[in-house]
Amino acid sequence: MNNRLIIFDTTLRDGEQSPGASMTREEKVRIARQLEKLRVDVIEAGFAAASQGDFEAIRAIATAVREPVVCSLARANDRDLSRAAEALEPAARKRIHTFIATSPLHMQVKLRMSPEQVLEQAKLAIRFARNFTDDIEFSPEDGSRSEEDFLCRVLENVIAEGATTINFPDTVGYAVPELYGETIRRLRERIPNSDKAVWSVHCHNDLGLAVANSLAGVMIGGARQVECTINGLGERAGNTALEEVVMALRTRGGYFNLECGIDTTQIVPASKMVSQITGFAVQPNKAVVGANAFAHASGIHQDGILKARETYEIMRAEDVGWTANKIVLGKLSGRNAFKQRLQELGIELDSEAEINAAFTRFKELADRKAEIFDEDIMALVSGEEAAAGGEHYRLVSLAQRSETGELPFATVVFSIDGVEHSAVATGDGPVDAMVNAIESKAQSGAELVLFSINGISPGTQSQGEVTMRLAHSGRIVNGVGADPDIVVASAKAYLAGLNKLHSKIEKLNPQV
Amino acid sequence: MNNRLIIFDTTLRDGEQSPGASMTREEKVRIARQLEKLRVDVIEAGFAAASQGDFEAIRAIATAVREPVVCSLARANDRDLSRAAEALEPAARKRIHTFIATSPLHMQVKLRMSPEQVLEQAKLAIRFARNFTDDIEFSPEDGSRSEEDFLCRVLENVIAEGATTINFPDTVGYAVPELYGETIRRLRERIPNSDKAVWSVHCHNDLGLAVANSLAGVMIGGARQVECTINGLGERAGNTALEEVVMALRTRGGYFNLECGIDTTQIVPASKMVSQITGFAVQPNKAVVGANAFAHASGIHQDGILKARETYEIMRAEDVGWTANKIVLGKLSGRNAFKQRLQELGIELDSEAEINAAFTRFKELADRKAEIFDEDIMALVSGEEAAAGGEHYRLVSLAQRSETGELPFATVVFSIDGVEHSAVATGDGPVDAMVNAIESKAQSGAELVLFSINGISPGTQSQGEVTMRLAHSGRIVNGVGADPDIVVASAKAYLAGLNKLHSKIEKLNPQV
Repeated sequence: MNNRLIIFDTTLRDGEQSPGASMTREEKVRIARQLEKLRVDVIEAGFAAASQGDFEAIRAIATAVREPVVCSLARANDRDLSRAAEALEPAARKRIHTFIATSPLHMQVKLRMSPEQVLEQAKLAIRFARNFTDDIEFSPEDGSRSEEDFLCRVLENVIAEGATTINFPDTVGYAVPELYGETIRRLRERIPNSDKAVWSVHCHNDLGLAVANSLAGVMIGGARQVECTINGLGERAGNTALEEVVMALRTRGGYFNLECGIDTTQIVPASKMVSQITGFAVQPNKAVVGANAFAHASGIHQDGILKARETYEIMRAEDVGWTANKIVLGKLSGRNAFKQRLQELGIELDSEAEINAAFTRFKELADRKAEIFDEDIMALVSGEEAAAGGEHYRLVSLAQRSETGELPFATVVFSIDGVEHSAVATGDGPVDAMVNAIESKAQSGAELVLFSINGISPGTQSQGEVTMRLAHSGRIVNGVGADPDIVVASAKAYLAGLNKLHSKIEKLNPQV
Repeated sequence: MNNRLIIFDTTLRDGEQSPGASMTREEKVRIARQLEKLRVDVIEAGFAAASQGDFEAIRAIATAVREPVVCSLARANDRDLSRAAEALEPAARKRIHTFIATSPLHMQVKLRMSPEQVLEQAKLAIRFARNFTDDIEFSPEDGSRSEEDFLCRVLENVIAEGATTINFPDTVGYAVPELYGETIRRLRERIPNSDKAVWSVHCHNDLGLAVANSLAGVMIGGARQVECTINGLGERAGNTALEEVVMALRTRGGYFNLECGIDTTQIVPASKMVSQITGFAVQPNKAVVGANAFAHASGIHQDGILKARETYEIMRAEDVGWTANKIVLGKLSGRNAFKQRLQELGIELDSEAEINAAFTRFKELADRKAEIFDEDIMALVSGEEAAAGGEHYRLVSLAQRSETGELPFATVVFSIDGVEHSAVATGDGPVDAMVNAIESKAQSGAELVLFSINGISPGTQSQGEVTMRLAHSGRIVNGVGADPDIVVASAKAYLAGLNKLHSKIEKLNPQV
């Protein structure tokens, strides 16, 4: 058995299904470029038939990256498969990932199909997909609750039709390592042509066991692909965290005896980018990418204790891309220095006009903030991309004040479709006053369900990065905004959230 | 073999060692009371010899809780053991947890002792501890790097001397489940009197495997005690998360066939309390206690999709204590209603004077915020307790303003040891201006290393809870402050951090 493990990243598909984690096309392309630097083997870029936005994002990613295989999810029908193929058309290397439910409950209730019909449909789907690519992955939806004899028949048939990867998802995060690994081993033993496909694991973390289940699927079950996401992003408790699987393999190389192609020094940059774009914070005590994960990365300089700690360290912070915050640019930095730094950060703006607009924002920021860090530049460009995406609401200016014993007060000037509005309101605090002011004109009816701010870089001379999660008519979005003034950052975040709610996206969220 | 699993919570000892997680005595007692409601079997309350603060906290906890065993850590020497015994004196049920290093490296470099001396010291420690209690736990520090023959000799001898629990820590988070479980099984097989002690696991999450390692130690190794913390709090990537172990046991009862005494409906209240007191946020996609862990707890009401999801759910949100935010009190609520709510929340203020002070703060808050949630009351009382603890710095009043194109500006009035100071400053944003104003008088030299704000309850009419992590001379503290005005909350957090830095605590952080 070969010892090469395929890393399949689904941050942009299963990760994005997490409520509030939806991303714009530009944001997805930025992440995909970072995943290419990280050297993942496969990028699942979305679900082409889910929405026009998903389709366009997959197409943009298929155009932007060259090394990784780009993959689209598709239900087992001709329309979905054609749509996936069309989106993937520009890709240097492409994969179609198709699925159909195989459990009695789902076949009866959801699909209203007999087992024989499902089997036939699965075979037809693989046959049709082969018109577009030879790299085809198949997932039996709700596989763990499927009758095993039937599952074996379906999987044997789809492999015979040409499926090259067989994924066995633990969709609900119910698995325990030993049993999950043994199920995959048993399936592989029972299916005569199982060696013609690469077997894949896809785990969720509801019981805190996603990484252990994935590794058991590999070690006991013989799987050679792990589906995972940056920061373990995903619905509910999330998916298997890429960084934990990769660092377990690497740190315990003698035990696992498996290789993967990941450039681990790109892990922390990828983590920060995904956290910043989605507004999903990483907790300090998160393995590998949490602020406390490495003692000396959290700013501790306790002599003696630190020395003792070093003898305990099993990973080096620099191996996963932790670097000291560096002052990279300032007020006097010119356009060329700025442009070069963008390139070093892997940020590719599409036109000179976009670079010019970003540089103007940079100069504005540098006037207000003496030290500009990489994180500041990334936040700046995120805002720039959002603006390029066509904003409905846009902040023009803001004034606010609060004083002990008096009612906080805010004046907000903002535009709706290019028309400026000025609004004044009071509130419990300056952020509440700002929201009241905006709502007095916008009247969106959005409900604020989560509010958080994180300093982007150390020190109070830092930009605050605000995430506001808004809910309206059953949809949930995260608006993110950054500014040295946290009330301004909050206003940007609130308007970004309203912009996301305004761009109505109807999309399907398959449970694979 | 019996199937009762002992849950040993070390949030207050190993969890507190996490940089920035240090807690006051009052905060520790509140958490201990919540752990009693959660029905943990053992509370490791601290390390009595580490500092006077630790000693007093253990004593206060030993007085406050009745049901759980209260435990203190102690090095294997008479002074530490006596100190532990003294702190535990008021406890209804007490345990001493003693440790000594058994690896060649540590014995030579740290202890400068021969293996025979270490063995003798370990035996003497158990013998001495038996003067105080029959419930004695022993940990071989750096056990996983110890020579196995020697380890067997030490453990056999300490059991013969009367150690009733043997803990085998994976201090550096290097273990993988199968090997960790097998090591414990082998030790238990090789040591003739191993059945005279309960075996215990203690894992760290550096590779994301702490929960799986703990469960393998139980299932493969036969351990019957799990050492864990709320939210997986702990140094670096943290310890085994109590909530994940407990919910894995419960959800997969047929597989694990183990019982524990935990009241799972107290899990989320415990999680929120620990997060609020330490300022360590829980990420949305954290298993069991993350805001997204249960779809319907995160505010999603997508018909159809939600219905389909319900069939997937493996745990019920209410079983782990997720409840809708309830408006519990308002402007018109009286002192009795407030006092009753405190009792229902498990908050026990020690004197009528403290209740009166808290009630005054409550009325002030209700004047500014129409809807008062449980979370608001908890934040209010945290502030009250901090004040009761004797503050060096205290906020009197604050005024701030910012406006696009102008320099943000803050005026802060605060007292230093009862003497009022007024300071004015500008900054990059209102928070920076506030910090600059305070520093112009306090001149603490503290460095801000982390800044975050979370809304305590949904809506913009929410209090912001600010965490500011300050570093100075190698020490790291988290200051937490809550207020409907986030700039005021930031000022409270900054001063709370300065207060913590001011109360110099020298303490030892053992690596067990």
